[in-house]
Amino acid sequence: MSSDLTGKEQIAIIGSGLIGQSWAMIFAGGGYRVTIYDILPEQVSKALETVKSNLTKYETQGCLRGSLSAQQQIGLISGSSSLEQCLQAASYVQECVPELVDLKRKVFQQIDPFITEHMVVATSSSCIGVSQFAGDLKNRHRTLVAHPVNPPYFIPLVEIVPGPWTLPEVTAKTRTLLEAVGQSPVTLSREVPGFALNRIQYSIINECWNMYKDGLLSAKDIDKVMVDGLGPRYAFIGPLETMHLNADGNTVNLVDYCQRYAQGAYNVTSTFIPPPILYDVPTAEDILKEVQETIPLEKITERRVWRDERLAALAALKKQLKEKTD
Amino acid sequence: MSSDLTGKEQIAIIGSGLIGQSWAMIFAGGGYRVTIYDILPEQVSKALETVKSNLTKYETQGCLRGSLSAQQQIGLISGSSSLEQCLQAASYVQECVPELVDLKRKVFQQIDPFITEHMVVATSSSCIGVSQFAGDLKNRHRTLVAHPVNPPYFIPLVEIVPGPWTLPEVTAKTRTLLEAVGQSPVTLSREVPGFALNRIQYSIINECWNMYKDGLLSAKDIDKVMVDGLGPRYAFIGPLETMHLNADGNTVNLVDYCQRYAQGAYNVTSTFIPPPILYDVPTAEDILKEVQETIPLEKITERRVWRDERLAALAALKKQLKEKTD
Repeated sequence: MSSDLTGKEQIAIIGSGLIGQSWAMIFAGGGYRVTIYDILPEQVSKALETVKSNLTKYETQGCLRGSLSAQQQIGLISGSSSLEQCLQAASYVQECVPELVDLKRKVFQQIDPFITEHMVVATSSSCIGVSQFAGDLKNRHRTLVAHPVNPPYFIPLVEIVPGPWTLPEVTAKTRTLLEAVGQSPVTLSREVPGFALNRIQYSIINECWNMYKDGLLSAKDIDKVMVDGLGPRYAFIGPLETMHLNADGNTVNLVDYCQRYAQGAYNVTSTFIPPPILYDVPTAEDILKEVQETIPLEKITERRVWRDERLAALAALKKQLKEKTD
Repeated sequence: MSSDLTGKEQIAIIGSGLIGQSWAMIFAGGGYRVTIYDILPEQVSKALETVKSNLTKYETQGCLRGSLSAQQQIGLISGSSSLEQCLQAASYVQECVPELVDLKRKVFQQIDPFITEHMVVATSSSCIGVSQFAGDLKNRHRTLVAHPVNPPYFIPLVEIVPGPWTLPEVTAKTRTLLEAVGQSPVTLSREVPGFALNRIQYSIINECWNMYKDGLLSAKDIDKVMVDGLGPRYAFIGPLETMHLNADGNTVNLVDYCQRYAQGAYNVTSTFIPPPILYDVPTAEDILKEVQETIPLEKITERRVWRDERLAALAALKKQLKEKTD
């Protein structure tokens, strides 16, 4: 029945944790058949239960992805504690084991014998490129990074990072597939430390950290600059387009904008403390004191639910606005 | 009638352009009586017309601020081409003339004789601190920066930046007033180049610029990293709270998070090109080529409307979620 629904390629998810579960729901939302693998049958059945419960909840809340019902999507997802069985007939493999280079190496060595000439094997790694662990594989040219952002079901970005040996067709196929299931992939030309997302994120944290240490603003006010100032804009418009749109009566486009304002930006960034910046413990302790006033340790879990509710609501709003425009 | 509605202090807006109009609508939304000043009566009446039309539109669209009707708010806003008349009885003055230091100096010199011991005079300047033009004023201790973000009606952040002579009570009063009308003020302890918002913004652009020049990603993909990755999160949670919430099974709070992950961030930022960065024209021309594929010059105005519609919708969503939580 499930295959009748889709007739699409099969997806193998290696690792049944939160990220693996999210990937399974994303691919099923796109109409793909998915098999979740983990070592212990209990892990697999627990993951399937969570996925089932989440998809049902998302349907009720109106934030289920894709055009199939929750029941249909659940029907597309199965589990296995046999790696061979999971990989059989799969054309795309998304590995989601913990972020440890030796573990990644071991898992990829186990996958290697099953990699066919039509298969792509992606790691969900947030900072370890395939160059660090896949070099000895026979099929290393079919491996790459596809790094999702938390929570992947509501934050569509995926960083595609090819290794030095990854075939261009493998990179291209990954991008096409991820776009087909509603993610928003970007393609890096090569591995760099932090990929793109964390390079931007650390740029932000560095300056926030330096301003805090310098006594310029409180930690709460620093976070407000983003949440009530830059953040809403960045939910819809990137930093480069922002420069283009900021062209005003005096300037007509991004080039004019740079000619007029680049020197001012240069002067401001001349006063930056040069990187690298170490996020030191005494400063972290001071910030923690402030942050804990609103989010004490026992409320962190609750606040994560609060965050994910908002991200889900924003994803729904963006979808609705997009449908209105298209 | 209007004064019966509020009984609150009066606000003087100096400059009838887009920012001045926004401030007028924000204060009227909070129930304050507002007078908009500009040199020519035509400028003033044109601004009043626009404000009237905007408030009526916002009411129809369901994004009018405050608890008064559009008609009531319009009744609170008047105009004048006499500076003296505008400043009379005002307890808070928001200057919104173009960002030119000599012009700011001239305008503040004209305002100075009318400054009373209960008055605050704020400039909307995005980068010029009062130390650069208010030093010769008799009442310089009652001046400071209150820098809004575009479009101020939907982006609540205001950067309060005291000059070296600003009285603490003046800074505190400004913060209280801006909070009372629904803005989200942050207080810097002193003037620094770029204040806080542009320091963060330039940190982001710098790294994006460097990644683009390095051929790491396309301009479109760089903007996607923000819009589909970091941006949605930053619409609700600041960079410091993000570190706190990212504490996971291995770490329990921001301090643990730093102990475990600071070295990784340090290593990534070790590969950054040290600031200052000049946004050079050849690179801007390359980026423009890409950006113009989706937003050609003749569509910039339309795209700004597109952006402001989204910011209004997000502001409404945030308000709705807040009311649900509170």
